[in-house]
Amino acid sequence: MPVMNEAALQAFLAREFPQIEGLKLTIEAVGDNYARVRMPVDGSQLRPGGTVSGPTMFALADVSVYIAILAMIGPVALAVTTNLAINFLRKPGLGDMLAEVRLLKLGQRLAVGEVHLFSEGSDEPVAQVTATYSIPPRNN
Amino acid sequence: MPVMNEAALQAFLAREFPQIEGLKLTIEAVGDNYARVRMPVDGSQLRPGGTVSGPTMFALADVSVYIAILAMIGPVALAVTTNLAINFLRKPGLGDMLAEVRLLKLGQRLAVGEVHLFSEGSDEPVAQVTATYSIPPRNN
Amino acid sequence: MPVMNEAALQAFLAREFPQIEGLKLTIEAVGDNYARVRMPVDGSQLRPGGTVSGPTMFALADVSVYIAILAMIGPVALAVTTNLAINFLRKPGLGDMLAEVRLLKLGQRLAVGEVHLFSEGSDEPVAQVTATYSIPPRNN
Amino acid sequence: MPVMNEAALQAFLAREFPQIEGLKLTIEAVGDNYARVRMPVDGSQLRPGGTVSGPTMFALADVSVYIAILAMIGPVALAVTTNLAINFLRKPGLGDMLAEVRLLKLGQRLAVGEVHLFSEGSDEPVAQVTATYSIPPRNN
Repeated sequence: MPVMNEAALQAFLAREFPQIEGLKLTIEAVGDNYARVRMPVDGSQLRPGGTVSGPTMFALADVSVYIAILAMIGPVALAVTTNLAINFLRKPGLGDMLAEVRLLKLGQRLAVGEVHLFSEGSDEPVAQVTATYSIPPRNN
Repeated sequence: MPVMNEAALQAFLAREFPQIEGLKLTIEAVGDNYARVRMPVDGSQLRPGGTVSGPTMFALADVSVYIAILAMIGPVALAVTTNLAINFLRKPGLGDMLAEVRLLKLGQRLAVGEVHLFSEGSDEPVAQVTATYSIPPRNN
Repeated sequence: MPVMNEAALQAFLAREFPQIEGLKLTIEAVGDNYARVRMPVDGSQLRPGGTVSGPTMFALADVSVYIAILAMIGPVALAVTTNLAINFLRKPGLGDMLAEVRLLKLGQRLAVGEVHLFSEGSDEPVAQVTATYSIPPRNN
Repeated sequence: MPVMNEAALQAFLAREFPQIEGLKLTIEAVGDNYARVRMPVDGSQLRPGGTVSGPTMFALADVSVYIAILAMIGPVALAVTTNLAINFLRKPGLGDMLAEVRLLKLGQRLAVGEVHLFSEGSDEPVAQVTATYSIPPRNN
């Protein structure tokens, strides 16, 4: 079960990862190997065609997996992404973007998360992401 | 909704893909962008350590996505896998292996499926697979 | 062989993709199924730890594959990334980042490119990327 | 530099991995973070259409990365594949299949290899594979 709640995670990210402040993420829910994160969509992430950019979706998915991991193991600032694969499925809509994360594995050394990105109001995913994080040795 | 049922798919595979006969697959269920396929686990697919081999999991996942696509669009023998990524999550158990497929996209040219492989009796996935198929032009 | 040269590609990107202007990319070389692109590294892309961010590497790799495709087939603004997988291999150095792209396939419908990202002055890759682009039908 | 040569690797595989005996692999060359492995192509791996099957290419690429790792770190039977992504690029020819492996990273915990599969006589790759291995702690 989670050891950090939404508010604690939100505060940790603001303090340790100021570089993602621009994404204006809201951690909506965390649970057992689960997280849901919301990103408002406004002009700044848009391509001319009105689409959220690939790097922005990458950033949202990547940090959302990190949030799901932190929720379970506590504040480990040094977990790093080793592999991330993204499939772009359809054009995003105009609403906020939501990341739904499920951790498929949370081992001593590696965690693997699966993310589906949705535009609010649609249940067809805009993108699917699988990410692997390397977790530093925890001496306990 | 599906245009082929389990029995029709099973017969199509036996006729068009005799090379997978050795996997002894059973198509347990197909639905809207969904398929569940069972593979019995006996000595032949085992590594010495008692684990189903990676190539065998690859084969099961790949054909299961193909089955989910065929169920939706009918017998198109020429759809081909263009990309397949597999994450090995934990050691399989001794029971049958089950592939649960969800098609995330079924477009005119590309289909993307997500597969979770389970050992029967466990709800923690043994492997996660994402596969992309290229679908030949359908003139209709 | 390429049908657009470095200067033509640079002008096309500036006109059609103003949103990547912030990356300040220089197209250093294009060749047969090949491109090399340079990104200056300054404070704006840095994490606190001094590392180029994952989304920035994603953006560099993605646009570099696009450049390699455009060089071969001419200005097709509508090619879209369908899949991108990135492996983070080691921490970037302080120098400019270079993307070396090799197109492994350039078909009628799909192109697949492989990218190695380097920090200038090192020959050990910082990241490896494989990206697939869907190419719109060309009526000719 | 390698610590096992071709003959030592060939003997190790025959002893520890009898299950791949059917692939009849020949380890043609190992070098610094490099390996080249040959697989004869005969009827048994063929699909009806005359193509080497996806699972067979998976098996060849996977074991070839393992060989490149063993060559560098010595006989570690417990390294396991955690992630493997394959891009199918073109239809194989009739000749033997060759796997060219380059290790992009060989760390204490993870190794990442990139493989290009060729049909003998062609320099256009049939498939590209990226594989990550988890390496067990070495107490030394």
